[in-house]
Amino acid sequence: MPDNDPIASLLDKQEIHELVLRYCRGIDRFDRAAVAACFHPDATDTHGSFNGTITEFIDWAFRLLERYDATMHLVANQLITLSGDLAVAETYGIAHHRSSDPDPRRNLTVGFRYIDRVERRQDRVWRIAERVATTEWVTAPAPGSEWPIPADSAVGVRGPDDPIHRFLARLDPTS
Amino acid sequence: MPDNDPIASLLDKQEIHELVLRYCRGIDRFDRAAVAACFHPDATDTHGSFNGTITEFIDWAFRLLERYDATMHLVANQLITLSGDLAVAETYGIAHHRSSDPDPRRNLTVGFRYIDRVERRQDRVWRIAERVATTEWVTAPAPGSEWPIPADSAVGVRGPDDPIHRFLARLDPTS
Amino acid sequence: MPDNDPIASLLDKQEIHELVLRYCRGIDRFDRAAVAACFHPDATDTHGSFNGTITEFIDWAFRLLERYDATMHLVANQLITLSGDLAVAETYGIAHHRSSDPDPRRNLTVGFRYIDRVERRQDRVWRIAERVATTEWVTAPAPGSEWPIPADSAVGVRGPDDPIHRFLARLDPTS
Repeated sequence: MPDNDPIASLLDKQEIHELVLRYCRGIDRFDRAAVAACFHPDATDTHGSFNGTITEFIDWAFRLLERYDATMHLVANQLITLSGDLAVAETYGIAHHRSSDPDPRRNLTVGFRYIDRVERRQDRVWRIAERVATTEWVTAPAPGSEWPIPADSAVGVRGPDDPIHRFLARLDPTS
Repeated sequence: MPDNDPIASLLDKQEIHELVLRYCRGIDRFDRAAVAACFHPDATDTHGSFNGTITEFIDWAFRLLERYDATMHLVANQLITLSGDLAVAETYGIAHHRSSDPDPRRNLTVGFRYIDRVERRQDRVWRIAERVATTEWVTAPAPGSEWPIPADSAVGVRGPDDPIHRFLARLDPTS
Repeated sequence: MPDNDPIASLLDKQEIHELVLRYCRGIDRFDRAAVAACFHPDATDTHGSFNGTITEFIDWAFRLLERYDATMHLVANQLITLSGDLAVAETYGIAHHRSSDPDPRRNLTVGFRYIDRVERRQDRVWRIAERVATTEWVTAPAPGSEWPIPADSAVGVRGPDDPIHRFLARLDPTS
């Protein structure tokens, strides 16, 4: 369909939108395979001090992620410019890193943008081919500003025990 | 329409997206009826220390909301998995609670996820049937970090005086 | 198409959504023409202490923006009510202002809502006709909470050197 078919464009943008959301879910639920599926095998990533291939990036990122008890990559503004089977997606976000270690460096909050070149190749699935993540600001918890999560609250977990997995498992896959 | 009709899926996702946004508007504008309309009558909610029916939840939540001058439930990432007339929606958010009482507990900011089972029943309107809200992190204002809203600024209000109501009233409902 | 054509409504909402995102990009990349293109020439804006025409607003806003090294206008919840060629869009956001000047007033974070009357006139492009921006909360960095962006990170810039421009320039405009 030509780029100027507005419905086809809308569907493409939705697929690219969900791609970036699946990336965030993969990072926050510590699911390496889910993150890898968001990228073409030859993708590159420039991210903080890292610059390299997607395989190297995932090794680096998951090594860093082990330092935290939890992360939350909240993403909002996403402007997508389509050009056939190519697209550029700019996504604004805030990454929350939390650790039981009170070291502020283990508890930073980071404003960022993902600037992604996204490509749809033979398998017709939009995936990231090149990412530059910019850092826009960084804050640490000020003394006294970190409050504990109440003990009786549901809390996100990284493994299969997170409630999202339980909810998804109850959907009938055949319906 | 079958699940694999991409346009029907997009419309379903938009309806579910707006459902969660109407929930947030209802909470932040202190509109109990608007919140109740987001849930099936037999819905359940697990939310912080609360776990019970939707009627009990709304009573509990609006009793807590009275402690604050204002709240802002900002929601972002929303991944929706459809399965016919059922869906699971995971929504990331940040809830800002503000009070003229300087007690930090009256001014917490909370990172959360809504994990919702959403169902479309006889009236064909998507509504939440079951919610688990996870708490991801909690922060309080550090001394000196809370700045007053400038006196000449427009400020959101909970009742009919909020500007959103004035703007909506000027739309011609018959056009 | 009538308002009750769900696909036409979805396309209208997407156009209005991207309008507000282009506004944020224009502000954050310090692009006055991009911001001006989001408004009808007779638009009005009420924004913090400002209340006036869109031309006056842009002069005022860009004078303020020069005080900061960077801004990030993250927007999330957006509920749009359509009525033919008119619409009301309520958009929740958080504006991050950053400056190398450590004065907290140069580094405020502001929770806001944009309440927009949006109109589609002769040129069939949705643009803002009237905006009221409410301020919901304001915070300043607490001492010790501002951490420097690591020296080896990509950082957003306001001029043509921001990576988004490089990514967009590589899209083939004829495809």
